[in-house]
Amino acid sequence: MIEPNNWGRWGPDDERGTLNLLTPEVVLAATRSVRQGRVVSLALPIRGSTSSPARLGVPHLPGRPLPQHFMSVDGGDYAAGTRPIGPGLCVCDDALVVSPHGTTTHLDALCHMWTGDQLYNGHAASRVRSYGATRCGIDKAGGIVTRGVFLDVAARLGVPHLDGGFRIGADHLEACGAQLRPGDAVVIRTGWPLVHESDPSSYAHPQPGLSYEAGLWLAERDVALVAMDNAAIAALDDHGRCTEPLEEDLHLLFLWRHGIHLLEMLWLEELHALAATDFLFTLAPLTIEGGTASPVNPLAVL
Amino acid sequence: MIEPNNWGRWGPDDERGTLNLLTPEVVLAATRSVRQGRVVSLALPIRGSTSSPARLGVPHLPGRPLPQHFMSVDGGDYAAGTRPIGPGLCVCDDALVVSPHGTTTHLDALCHMWTGDQLYNGHAASRVRSYGATRCGIDKAGGIVTRGVFLDVAARLGVPHLDGGFRIGADHLEACGAQLRPGDAVVIRTGWPLVHESDPSSYAHPQPGLSYEAGLWLAERDVALVAMDNAAIAALDDHGRCTEPLEEDLHLLFLWRHGIHLLEMLWLEELHALAATDFLFTLAPLTIEGGTASPVNPLAVL
Amino acid sequence: MIEPNNWGRWGPDDERGTLNLLTPEVVLAATRSVRQGRVVSLALPIRGSTSSPARLGVPHLPGRPLPQHFMSVDGGDYAAGTRPIGPGLCVCDDALVVSPHGTTTHLDALCHMWTGDQLYNGHAASRVRSYGATRCGIDKAGGIVTRGVFLDVAARLGVPHLDGGFRIGADHLEACGAQLRPGDAVVIRTGWPLVHESDPSSYAHPQPGLSYEAGLWLAERDVALVAMDNAAIAALDDHGRCTEPLEEDLHLLFLWRHGIHLLEMLWLEELHALAATDFLFTLAPLTIEGGTASPVNPLAVL
Amino acid sequence: MIEPNNWGRWGPDDERGTLNLLTPEVVLAATRSVRQGRVVSLALPIRGSTSSPARLGVPHLPGRPLPQHFMSVDGGDYAAGTRPIGPGLCVCDDALVVSPHGTTTHLDALCHMWTGDQLYNGHAASRVRSYGATRCGIDKAGGIVTRGVFLDVAARLGVPHLDGGFRIGADHLEACGAQLRPGDAVVIRTGWPLVHESDPSSYAHPQPGLSYEAGLWLAERDVALVAMDNAAIAALDDHGRCTEPLEEDLHLLFLWRHGIHLLEMLWLEELHALAATDFLFTLAPLTIEGGTASPVNPLAVL
Repeated sequence: MIEPNNWGRWGPDDERGTLNLLTPEVVLAATRSVRQGRVVSLALPIRGSTSSPARLGVPHLPGRPLPQHFMSVDGGDYAAGTRPIGPGLCVCDDALVVSPHGTTTHLDALCHMWTGDQLYNGHAASRVRSYGATRCGIDKAGGIVTRGVFLDVAARLGVPHLDGGFRIGADHLEACGAQLRPGDAVVIRTGWPLVHESDPSSYAHPQPGLSYEAGLWLAERDVALVAMDNAAIAALDDHGRCTEPLEEDLHLLFLWRHGIHLLEMLWLEELHALAATDFLFTLAPLTIEGGTASPVNPLAVL
Repeated sequence: MIEPNNWGRWGPDDERGTLNLLTPEVVLAATRSVRQGRVVSLALPIRGSTSSPARLGVPHLPGRPLPQHFMSVDGGDYAAGTRPIGPGLCVCDDALVVSPHGTTTHLDALCHMWTGDQLYNGHAASRVRSYGATRCGIDKAGGIVTRGVFLDVAARLGVPHLDGGFRIGADHLEACGAQLRPGDAVVIRTGWPLVHESDPSSYAHPQPGLSYEAGLWLAERDVALVAMDNAAIAALDDHGRCTEPLEEDLHLLFLWRHGIHLLEMLWLEELHALAATDFLFTLAPLTIEGGTASPVNPLAVL
Repeated sequence: MIEPNNWGRWGPDDERGTLNLLTPEVVLAATRSVRQGRVVSLALPIRGSTSSPARLGVPHLPGRPLPQHFMSVDGGDYAAGTRPIGPGLCVCDDALVVSPHGTTTHLDALCHMWTGDQLYNGHAASRVRSYGATRCGIDKAGGIVTRGVFLDVAARLGVPHLDGGFRIGADHLEACGAQLRPGDAVVIRTGWPLVHESDPSSYAHPQPGLSYEAGLWLAERDVALVAMDNAAIAALDDHGRCTEPLEEDLHLLFLWRHGIHLLEMLWLEELHALAATDFLFTLAPLTIEGGTASPVNPLAVL
Repeated sequence: MIEPNNWGRWGPDDERGTLNLLTPEVVLAATRSVRQGRVVSLALPIRGSTSSPARLGVPHLPGRPLPQHFMSVDGGDYAAGTRPIGPGLCVCDDALVVSPHGTTTHLDALCHMWTGDQLYNGHAASRVRSYGATRCGIDKAGGIVTRGVFLDVAARLGVPHLDGGFRIGADHLEACGAQLRPGDAVVIRTGWPLVHESDPSSYAHPQPGLSYEAGLWLAERDVALVAMDNAAIAALDDHGRCTEPLEEDLHLLFLWRHGIHLLEMLWLEELHALAATDFLFTLAPLTIEGGTASPVNPLAVL
């Protein structure tokens, strides 16, 4: 039986996980990280997978329901003879169907994983029902504005990307030379999305990821958020599985034991090209009531 | 025949609308607006409308397809006997179906409205097809980080909320006393969502909104974005219609003639309670390729 | 505590409800009901509710998620310049999002309603989970081919349609003069959809429906299926509610106590105009694994 | 430039394709094909593809958006503590997202494919827009009740299933010995779904199918419908493509030149096991206004 170790750190009734850590001082200090006035998006594109002859072309895990994007009225309709509204207005409108996990850049809610009968902070797991999670849902994450610290492990190791199955150790993180502060958003680059660029069929697995000891090292530093450009934070083996035992599972470690949000499937190549170090990090998950995750577009303000 | 007047302001081939305005200087100056280190979300909740016995309970326009949120596995399943994954991991997962316009806080893409055969900047409207808009889609809006300026018109006029059908004049905006700078995100409060709190059936129409002359006044000031807490920027009459003639249509004025993004259906009551003036404004639309809008969670960092 | 009374009638392990009743003899006899060779559809249209300026225009209950129909490629795209596939083929493709209850002509699965901890035939209710119902789902209904018997109660009472709130009694059914046989599909006309034709806003409630004693009368006759043109079989009061006490609830009576499928929201005006009496009735619910219902297009072959 | 050859056969303004062929005499004669009173479903299961650990497990073409089935309230919720409605009623409810082509048993609408600017019968292709096809949509197909004739080509050739890429010739059809009549639904078995049973990864391509000359042979016999258990009527090569030139394309031949509906992805193993010959065939496509197809559950009444 594994035990949670940071339940209650944020207060016994607090449903908002790490956000208590984001004090006014942390936020103010973060704004001082902006030096160039340059805004960089860390998100992959959300590409509808319907009847397009083109391949999906963006990283995703196999077997997941891919995003579907539909236009309910478009320019083609006007070309075909649809009359503009009233005085001459043309309008286009659309719909998105999205299951974020494994299909696009997304933030996991604290409710996304647990063991036993309780969610993070001891809320009953039975509160996660078909209407959504009334505890620890993504709507509880709030807006996250803090300092982002970029640990470009692939660059540090002198490779374009880490190898599939490679586990990042605490020493690799430490070797990046950053001084982490409580409340930081740690952004870790494996470079793995480059594999998708050169050979989409090699993307899904194996994948590099964090080792359990690297996870502990981050949790001890009281970071607010762990953000990576792989699909599952942990490494994936040749069959697409995380092979850590339950007591070393990285999702449980971060989400369930420590209330640390996880941000997955980032695109960090622009940060890499700019040799970014720290910056103002902003993340605004959609306020989906009871959601298990939100597709997001995290921004680094350098 | 109405004419666009700011096509090309951002460069003839630029698909990114106002963002050229968001120079490094604008971004750096915006970070200096943060004084308290307080993060405020300006988004309404996204509440799934499926079989819940509860009423939808959030502002929306009638006749629009409401968001649907589904759990594909949840705590109820485990309570009913579903076995955890492998070693004891429980997981919840979900899907969202959303048509942003009229149903939740969202940013309009520049392609959302046009007249004639051309989108903003002269791109052919026929490029907006069932696969999405290959010009002026929401994926082109990028991340927006700039100074936010709060014009609390309702407070200025000493009312809880403006009346349905009321049109805000340039003089009302000016009376708020803010000095607008090019690239600002202007956030205008009507207080109208309070009507939904007291009587949901009165929300849809009429609604207060901007007058055309107020729109011109904003466009002349080169703002990057106009953000409001009503549903259509313009006022709505008793039947839910904008009654401006084509040449004074506010969506055309902003999106099509000036390349100014529109952010609708905000929740501004917290900014009001805090008597906010200016702040760091961040907005990160989802990178939906070819999307006509994105649900968003705009943040004000006071 | 109410008791099921026909569990086991179809065999203790039978998941297929009434179908045992549909013996070869019943099916063969049903084919002999065809006299004219005329095929009549009993379904309402399924109309996508997205951004069309047109009103939905088809009967539905308020608060239900309406069907959404999207074209993922269409003729408008080709008009706008999309190139045909390879040698000159044009194709259109689409998607449907549908929640059948209350939105269109549909067949309820036996799992749709229950009381206590057990579904029809004593299956554990906990087998109905996020992946669907592994017992009594709509995929278990199979294809239904039997004799249809038309009880045009509105015509019998000499009115265009029954009044909202009116409860059909056993005597009204009996007065229609039909000799019911075990395994028959009983098709009962209230005429209520005509109200939608003249005033859509009056459709939802109140509605006429069956009384409990009429329900008992039907159950005693071992019918295979009860089919009606109202939205809930039972009558609805001014607030859209069925007001029968639990022990007289018509959904429980038919689905749960007797394993009799319910078919709702039919269009019976063509049968009425033809003064139909009995006919070959065919119903082919989609094989949605674990579904709670299926949209259907029931056919009467006169 | 290829030419349609049967436009107008069903009348210049007739939007209902082959149905004129289904005269009362044809329907009456069809009912006389019922000899055993046995109802056989010809549909594959519709299985939601969301977060289930189970593989999809049903035949489908790669790259297509798979059906998604969601429960909006289920037995798990009650197990987790959700309170029954009012007096003790438990209810389950669900939603289905489906794109029929290539994912399940479905009937193609006549609008599904065309060449040039016109649909079947000369309707403008520009009438197929984002709101659906106002001409030749699946809602125009109506209910189909006719004689079904089973041509078990695989059995005739003495193989469990035809080989991938094999093209059925007119001689193979003729060798089955059936006397086709105008208006018949011809049901042709390749046995290909058995490949999915033994090795799902071999299902998609290649596939056996009809040759063009076999298509002509069927069209000349004025059949109402061609129904098969492969995915595209035509054969698919190793890359999943139909390689016929435009003038011999089978979808164009049937849908566009002759107004003959196509029914794909059937499950015919039960008919095979029963050594069926002819029977009453019923097909009731959903009345999706403007749809390009409908998922269906075709029934054979032996």
